[in-house]
Amino acid sequence: MQKDRNIILADSIKRLLRRGATRSLQNILSKTHAADLSLAFRELSKSSRLTMFNLMSDPEQQSILLSELEENIFLELVPEINLDEIATIFENMAADDAAELLGHLDEELSDAILEKMKNEDSLEVEHLMSYGEDTAGSIMVPNFIAIKEDMGAKDAIAALQSNMDVEMPFYIYVVNEYGKLVGVCSLRQLVVVPPETPLKEYMATDIVSVNTYTDREEVAEIVARYDFLAVPVVDDDHRLVGIVTVDDVIDIISEEATGDILKMAGVGEDYIETQTIFRGTRIRLPWLFTSFLGGLAAFFIIGGFEESLEKYTYLAAFIPVIMGMGGNIGTQSSTIVVRGIATGRINIRDIWSVVGKELAIGVILGLVYGLFIGVVAKIRFFSEPLSLQLAFSVCLAVISSMSVAALVGSLVPLLFEKANIDPAVATGPFVTTSVDIVSVYCYFMIATLLLGI
Amino acid sequence: MQKDRNIILADSIKRLLRRGATRSLQNILSKTHAADLSLAFRELSKSSRLTMFNLMSDPEQQSILLSELEENIFLELVPEINLDEIATIFENMAADDAAELLGHLDEELSDAILEKMKNEDSLEVEHLMSYGEDTAGSIMVPNFIAIKEDMGAKDAIAALQSNMDVEMPFYIYVVNEYGKLVGVCSLRQLVVVPPETPLKEYMATDIVSVNTYTDREEVAEIVARYDFLAVPVVDDDHRLVGIVTVDDVIDIISEEATGDILKMAGVGEDYIETQTIFRGTRIRLPWLFTSFLGGLAAFFIIGGFEESLEKYTYLAAFIPVIMGMGGNIGTQSSTIVVRGIATGRINIRDIWSVVGKELAIGVILGLVYGLFIGVVAKIRFFSEPLSLQLAFSVCLAVISSMSVAALVGSLVPLLFEKANIDPAVATGPFVTTSVDIVSVYCYFMIATLLLGI
Repeated sequence: MQKDRNIILADSIKRLLRRGATRSLQNILSKTHAADLSLAFRELSKSSRLTMFNLMSDPEQQSILLSELEENIFLELVPEINLDEIATIFENMAADDAAELLGHLDEELSDAILEKMKNEDSLEVEHLMSYGEDTAGSIMVPNFIAIKEDMGAKDAIAALQSNMDVEMPFYIYVVNEYGKLVGVCSLRQLVVVPPETPLKEYMATDIVSVNTYTDREEVAEIVARYDFLAVPVVDDDHRLVGIVTVDDVIDIISEEATGDILKMAGVGEDYIETQTIFRGTRIRLPWLFTSFLGGLAAFFIIGGFEESLEKYTYLAAFIPVIMGMGGNIGTQSSTIVVRGIATGRINIRDIWSVVGKELAIGVILGLVYGLFIGVVAKIRFFSEPLSLQLAFSVCLAVISSMSVAALVGSLVPLLFEKANIDPAVATGPFVTTSVDIVSVYCYFMIATLLLGI
Repeated sequence: MQKDRNIILADSIKRLLRRGATRSLQNILSKTHAADLSLAFRELSKSSRLTMFNLMSDPEQQSILLSELEENIFLELVPEINLDEIATIFENMAADDAAELLGHLDEELSDAILEKMKNEDSLEVEHLMSYGEDTAGSIMVPNFIAIKEDMGAKDAIAALQSNMDVEMPFYIYVVNEYGKLVGVCSLRQLVVVPPETPLKEYMATDIVSVNTYTDREEVAEIVARYDFLAVPVVDDDHRLVGIVTVDDVIDIISEEATGDILKMAGVGEDYIETQTIFRGTRIRLPWLFTSFLGGLAAFFIIGGFEESLEKYTYLAAFIPVIMGMGGNIGTQSSTIVVRGIATGRINIRDIWSVVGKELAIGVILGLVYGLFIGVVAKIRFFSEPLSLQLAFSVCLAVISSMSVAALVGSLVPLLFEKANIDPAVATGPFVTTSVDIVSVYCYFMIATLLLGI
């Protein structure tokens, strides 16, 4: 339903653009939320987007639109906009969003925009840009409420009312005379305590905070775990310097999940669905190279068993099912472990119990499907002299392929995590490819031995 | 770092439990957030968990712990707790969490608990349980602030202060005399407007709301898109009946992502990493059956080309690389499309442009890797009489396999989405298996034709 609404919106915009109905377009623009416009923008041509953008009269709406646009549309649109106008828009943007978006632009353009912006705004944005990518510092906003620990409740409420440009006072942070974060209290507490009691007498002191260089994924995990609306960010001297709000955390969680999914599929986390065929090809080409090398290895392994194949041609017919069963259970195991690590359900300390369980499941499922396939082999080649040996080889090959796959699939991501390498990157192509090689090798070894070639 | 903290916590608890140091345990419990305890609980034995739970003295902390526990630990723990105590804990729980948790229990136990609870609490919970699973109704909470449209700002602030059991007044909703939602205003507005002005004169009226039966995924999408802290839920008469808050939305987004990942890996979305080997095996067994059937199909296809294989044994050696390249690009395409649909970046209306682009990428990558593999084949079998035809067959097979895989991988999830079937379920095993079958068939057809067998 949501999707349909955006298409209807895009269609009306296109119709009005064709008719040049500027007044009606401005009317639509003023009534539509920028987040909805960003979806409709996808359906428009490059020149229509610029026309629409220039018709917008509210820099705040323009700034939200820019931060909601997909990256490639954003990169195409911004250089077309008048420099004075774009600087005004960035001044109206939340500092963390401005820092992130400017980071995506060419350095030349982003410097030019910062130059044009009011000094107070550009300094704040440049300050955020100085923190490393993916850190709490780069996504924090300075719009928090901090009140001195000696202040009474009544004065605190007065201070709050004069501070109403902070959209929503999530939490009231309490700092000491050096600006160090010492506590937190709620609006509710301020209302119920005696008006003169200093905050330090009833504030909560077991406060959870993050550092400016804390990884954004860890920040998201903390906000999600404690159901916070925001988490305070402190510097090395424990001075309160910003907060990370829950709306940014939602974006982080969704982006990290998408990144993990794309990495596991061997696409690379930066793949964007809407880019050109050429860029899509270039990004995906190297990820398939592992699979190509694995295929080559399997080719040479099978080539080494040419004699066996010449004697028993039908050995070849079982290659797909043995590879397929191993590949699929390997994907199951590695996905379960990678996602378990990401959600915190699986702990690196439990490495042997996790791998042991996966291996046990692999062996059991290998026995089940090995038996199935062995029976099929026995029935199909009933009249052949060595049909029982063949059935037994195939059965053993499935068991070993599925056991090895479950072992490799669960062990590899855990070892990568231990070595501080992203387990999601490791998992997709690496696991599938190594399982393919091992499966094929085991199969031909077992068959050659049992058939007495 | 977060993970290490929980392990240290679990280790201290274990040590104190062994020593029977009740006082120290109670001290730890009172100082630790229930969300952290839930992580430490994972590391404890069944009986230690019960001991710890009974040592907790605060029903509110107990209620948060229960709602944070993993489902299987929760299901094991609850029947062991005294019924009166568990009823008190559920009375202290947010109504939406209570409804969700009771829904996981046996009907008999959940009825017994509801029976023991205070009437006002159990009615509220039963009301929520009456809404369908995964709807906005089942996850909403009744703790919202609604003020009549005729009220002045001053009276509204007074009403707010007397209503401070609502933890954080995210938004102030405005209703008419029939309880219908007509607008929303912010705390900031209340403070700055003249004290007697009725709310309806300055409230925002373009309010986004959801219905009680709106799917929770759509609710999450709306909250994420507009950066809301909560979204109002209305019934069929547009009466305000609850709100869904951002902390629940975070859980939904994370759960949906995990569900999609597990479905795509062919595990089933309900797989939990911590369950027993037996249950793990039972859940994963049927998902591998597609792959088994696909393997059997490939077996009979290759069997049909026995004559070709007898003449050119080395044809078998190329099976893995042809299947592998097809399988991997198919996974890339289907993952990109499934995730694109989930995040709203890919629209079902653009089906032909998406599939066309994937097909183009598949053909280009097929040409690249087909050429590589063809060259390898030519070099390896240089002295054979038909080495050029062989190289050409292998090259064509890789091209067709990769093109078909990109086509199937992108088309299938879009068609499933169009037919209202979850594309993530469809994608994993279905795409891989059908790609395997088509790849093998094309390969042997092409080789048989070109080698003139």
